[in-house]
Amino acid sequence: MSDQINPDCKVRFEPHNIETIVKKGTNLLWAAMKAGVHINVSCGGEGICGLCKVKINDGEVESIRTEKVSDKEYTQGVRLACQSYILSDLTVTVPIESHLLKAIQTPEKPGLPGISAAWRFNPPVIKFYLELSPATMSDNASDLFRLMHGLQKSYNIENLPVDFQVIQKLPGALREKDWKATVTILLDSDKSTDNENNSWKIINVEAGDTRDKLYAAAIDIGTTTICAQLLDLTHGRIVSEKIIFNKQISYGLDVITRIAYSQKPGGLKILQELVVASINEAIDSLLKNSNIERKDISHIMTAGNTTMQHILLGLDTKYIRLSPYTPVANDLPLVKANSLGIQAADHVHVFNFRPISSYVGGDIVSGVTAAGIHQQKKLTFYMDIGTNGEIVIGNSDWMISTSCSAGPAFEGGGIKHGMVAMSGAIQSVSIDPLTLEPTIRTINDSKPRGICGSGLINTIAELLTNKVIEQNGKFHSHLNSKRIREKEDGVEYVLAWAKETQIDKDIVITELDIDNLIRAKAAMYAGCRTLSRNMGINSLDFEQVILSGNFGSSLDIEQAITIGLLPDIPRDRFQFIGNGSLSGARLAAFSSDLLNDSLRISRMMTNVELSDNNDFMNEYVAALFLPHTDEKQFPSVTEKLKNNIARDKK
Amino acid sequence: MSDQINPDCKVRFEPHNIETIVKKGTNLLWAAMKAGVHINVSCGGEGICGLCKVKINDGEVESIRTEKVSDKEYTQGVRLACQSYILSDLTVTVPIESHLLKAIQTPEKPGLPGISAAWRFNPPVIKFYLELSPATMSDNASDLFRLMHGLQKSYNIENLPVDFQVIQKLPGALREKDWKATVTILLDSDKSTDNENNSWKIINVEAGDTRDKLYAAAIDIGTTTICAQLLDLTHGRIVSEKIIFNKQISYGLDVITRIAYSQKPGGLKILQELVVASINEAIDSLLKNSNIERKDISHIMTAGNTTMQHILLGLDTKYIRLSPYTPVANDLPLVKANSLGIQAADHVHVFNFRPISSYVGGDIVSGVTAAGIHQQKKLTFYMDIGTNGEIVIGNSDWMISTSCSAGPAFEGGGIKHGMVAMSGAIQSVSIDPLTLEPTIRTINDSKPRGICGSGLINTIAELLTNKVIEQNGKFHSHLNSKRIREKEDGVEYVLAWAKETQIDKDIVITELDIDNLIRAKAAMYAGCRTLSRNMGINSLDFEQVILSGNFGSSLDIEQAITIGLLPDIPRDRFQFIGNGSLSGARLAAFSSDLLNDSLRISRMMTNVELSDNNDFMNEYVAALFLPHTDEKQFPSVTEKLKNNIARDKK
Repeated sequence: MSDQINPDCKVRFEPHNIETIVKKGTNLLWAAMKAGVHINVSCGGEGICGLCKVKINDGEVESIRTEKVSDKEYTQGVRLACQSYILSDLTVTVPIESHLLKAIQTPEKPGLPGISAAWRFNPPVIKFYLELSPATMSDNASDLFRLMHGLQKSYNIENLPVDFQVIQKLPGALREKDWKATVTILLDSDKSTDNENNSWKIINVEAGDTRDKLYAAAIDIGTTTICAQLLDLTHGRIVSEKIIFNKQISYGLDVITRIAYSQKPGGLKILQELVVASINEAIDSLLKNSNIERKDISHIMTAGNTTMQHILLGLDTKYIRLSPYTPVANDLPLVKANSLGIQAADHVHVFNFRPISSYVGGDIVSGVTAAGIHQQKKLTFYMDIGTNGEIVIGNSDWMISTSCSAGPAFEGGGIKHGMVAMSGAIQSVSIDPLTLEPTIRTINDSKPRGICGSGLINTIAELLTNKVIEQNGKFHSHLNSKRIREKEDGVEYVLAWAKETQIDKDIVITELDIDNLIRAKAAMYAGCRTLSRNMGINSLDFEQVILSGNFGSSLDIEQAITIGLLPDIPRDRFQFIGNGSLSGARLAAFSSDLLNDSLRISRMMTNVELSDNNDFMNEYVAALFLPHTDEKQFPSVTEKLKNNIARDKK
Repeated sequence: MSDQINPDCKVRFEPHNIETIVKKGTNLLWAAMKAGVHINVSCGGEGICGLCKVKINDGEVESIRTEKVSDKEYTQGVRLACQSYILSDLTVTVPIESHLLKAIQTPEKPGLPGISAAWRFNPPVIKFYLELSPATMSDNASDLFRLMHGLQKSYNIENLPVDFQVIQKLPGALREKDWKATVTILLDSDKSTDNENNSWKIINVEAGDTRDKLYAAAIDIGTTTICAQLLDLTHGRIVSEKIIFNKQISYGLDVITRIAYSQKPGGLKILQELVVASINEAIDSLLKNSNIERKDISHIMTAGNTTMQHILLGLDTKYIRLSPYTPVANDLPLVKANSLGIQAADHVHVFNFRPISSYVGGDIVSGVTAAGIHQQKKLTFYMDIGTNGEIVIGNSDWMISTSCSAGPAFEGGGIKHGMVAMSGAIQSVSIDPLTLEPTIRTINDSKPRGICGSGLINTIAELLTNKVIEQNGKFHSHLNSKRIREKEDGVEYVLAWAKETQIDKDIVITELDIDNLIRAKAAMYAGCRTLSRNMGINSLDFEQVILSGNFGSSLDIEQAITIGLLPDIPRDRFQFIGNGSLSGARLAAFSSDLLNDSLRISRMMTNVELSDNNDFMNEYVAALFLPHTDEKQFPSVTEKLKNNIARDKK
């Protein structure tokens, strides 16, 4: 980066056609953020994920070359935005792949694995075209009556309530194109707490035939990211997609810190405005990428955890955090988008998936709906792994859910050299059974900086199968390796020597770290067991396991079973669903049946609170072992450990 | 009034305890208006109506003494505010009678004549008190679920939809008084166009027991005046009342000029804001007079003609005025009061009586409901006389309505010396059969200035019965009286000589005037006949005639029959209902049954457009005679005219 005095540089981003002025030497990714041009990065701007590729059309940058940019690309002017510094006025093209993360491109065709298999295409928003007879002296009924009569005559639709805004625009809309008009109706899912009693209402009227312009936005409101898709409800397809960070992030990384902030004076309003600003940014981007007009979005489906849902709707989150952990409401009514601050036409409503409890939110309901658990007799175990792991067990007849406070270990929290899954994180480890020397692999194959969740699971599984640690997580005492040593914190295993790392320190895993991860996996597994036992089920009997969330897709299932995080059942029963919450929001936008299913699922779900549950405490203690104190629960792991007795015999 | 230089005077009004500073010499009524203290006057400040009596407690005024102030009152310090000019600092008591006009004090007890006889007290807004069990770990359902469960358990109320604002305030409201709370529910009359399908919704929740604080405002939105009552829905009584002018008046006196103004750019918004400002002023005054808090008003019932309803709701009025005269909507949904600009708690909705057509509005439906026509087998004729006369005929089985463009003659418009009913208006006339000299009476017995509607009816009836004019409205040619003379406008009759008047001109009634009034009464009567014939009814068979409106109460029924305005049936079948529109709004606020009745009435009503109706034109031509070309329709008048042949024989 240049150190000389900094002149201004003008940077134009294509195809957005947005310009910004920044100081010479500014990071290009930062300049894009400043200009409101969103380029997704999954590595936090470390040059690792390679998602932020842009093409420099004009002007000069100083750029650190990484292996993510091929020779051919490099000669074409392709650079990683995060690794580029602006040296002159620039014109930069942001390619479409840079807008999108692959994780959201879950296929929605019926029949694909892990996605609700049987659903009709019958969106909860529909347009009807009408050609009405003009008013005459002998038939001078009100405009509204004429409209209702037309709906009745042409489509046999009767007695729908009408939103007030429709009435206000009716005289103009009917006459503008000579009594030809299009009516939009919406499934009013909150008419009643009784699902049988769903009904529809008229939310819009437009002059002429606008049936081919019917779009919805599906939005997963995550604590960290907002994942949005623009959906064409006429043809049942995804038009564009966008992931951005939830702008609330600067107010805390998890829901607990958000709740804490929302309790400060004005805090809830700030967080509400931030999530709305995030949604607006995502929708702006969806529209920009698709050349669709904002007025043609007629509905918004949102799924999120209970805290995110409360904040979006401006509901007090205080009692989510305080025992006995009550949410304000499960049955969240449709709310006008613009009343929340969302920039949308005045007829647009926001649907929120019905949460189950304070810690099992609408995102889980949406995911379970997408997974189609309610459509199958198969006994299914659904798991969303994260700081707060959510678990659902059930099938078409019954479902039971809970949330396990796994703690932050799976995201590297509370681990001596733990880190999130970014550049330099050790993500896979194998240990030579004879020498005990490790082979490590880091994200981006760069020098190691720490260990991420999947690396931790991997390391512990390897230490266990190679008998470096005992099943209680303690190191075997008789091992002869310089990698194993006693320090002030206890025994530890050295994964990388200081000289091999970016941090100039030995990267180790300590008995304390192993203990932490055992506690985290024990919480998840004990949650699963508690629910199972509650229903008289053996966790080995699961016919299907569905893993949702971003962690899910980088998880090594074999290793996760080895440490006792996942149940020891045939590996082909495991499926990754990707972002189940977003998939469910999309599917429910395509299918009223699935939307109604989601309400039914949420209402049928039995929720179990684990925080002062004795069974859970017993299961938890029993699971504080690798893989478990009850070896019958992990037959294949037990078998593997027995066969692998080389070290003992050595 | 003093002409000397004007020092400031401080005027305090009791019991309002409001002070204002004005210049010495200021009119006291004007000072009260400036201070926002509302003293009703029906004569426009002419010193005639005597309604603006105040008591001067302290200080000095210069006051014109009128006969409206008795000797006893005068010594007690009572003066007419409109006739008093401020000479010093003052303390003035505004007595309660000065706040109110008598016209609105219609009794609402069941069984009184002309008021809906049979109704249950079951208001469309109800409060329910709940004592809920606090949330525990074993029962940590959401706050909303707890509330709904409580309603179900205590009152067997299930599955009500909930307004979003209720959910937002729920956590605080439930916990503030230890899980004791009061829920307000509202009849959601617009859920469906099918009246059978009425349902309720939850609109408010308050901490503790607030059941005794449940009020509604009933408002008649007239083209000229806003009549409002504050109603106690716990005890079924009127708490306070207020009439003020509709602030739209400066934009035209009738609905047609208002519609014209509303079509100008920004015009609808201006008129909407003016009617809302009027409603706000009326409600402010109701609250001030009653010591009731605004938050305790939970509902607003409004009735008005179709144009006033459209303007209040911001609906385009254009097509009300253009053939074929279509209103935007009959089924007007409940609208949040504050979304219209009405200052009310955020849970308050505005109910609008369902209009029937562009010229038969919710005010007529309200009046018909109040009159209880729908509860009786009696064949009833309901008439609201004004610039636009509205007519309803029917009983509990059927109803038919229309509006007759009577023109402004009944309000003095288009009449050479016509005027509205104010000081100096000739309101009653008798003519000596021998000398043809008139005896006139003016409002306030002051020198005549012109003739008002009732005076016109009276004069023509007298001229007819005394054979001064023929039944076609033309003057008999052989009459020998200096009162009857031919001028450039044709023959005329002198009611008052110039020297006797305030205007220094002879006050006359011309053949043209008589012609105008004949046309006006012919329109009303032809409307009545057209509807009757439509139903195969003879207008002599009416078992009950109900007259609504302010004109109604000063009408001489005998004379109105004589000229052929009202049907010639026994006089004891006529009833005045006063302000039927306001009465209906009040009654429907006390009784959901009547509210539902009003919807049923509006939907069952057959409306007949007269503007290009041949039957009407024939009836109209036939009615252009005094009393009518068909003398069988006016047997008692025919008899009277035959008996009264003195002049012919003279």
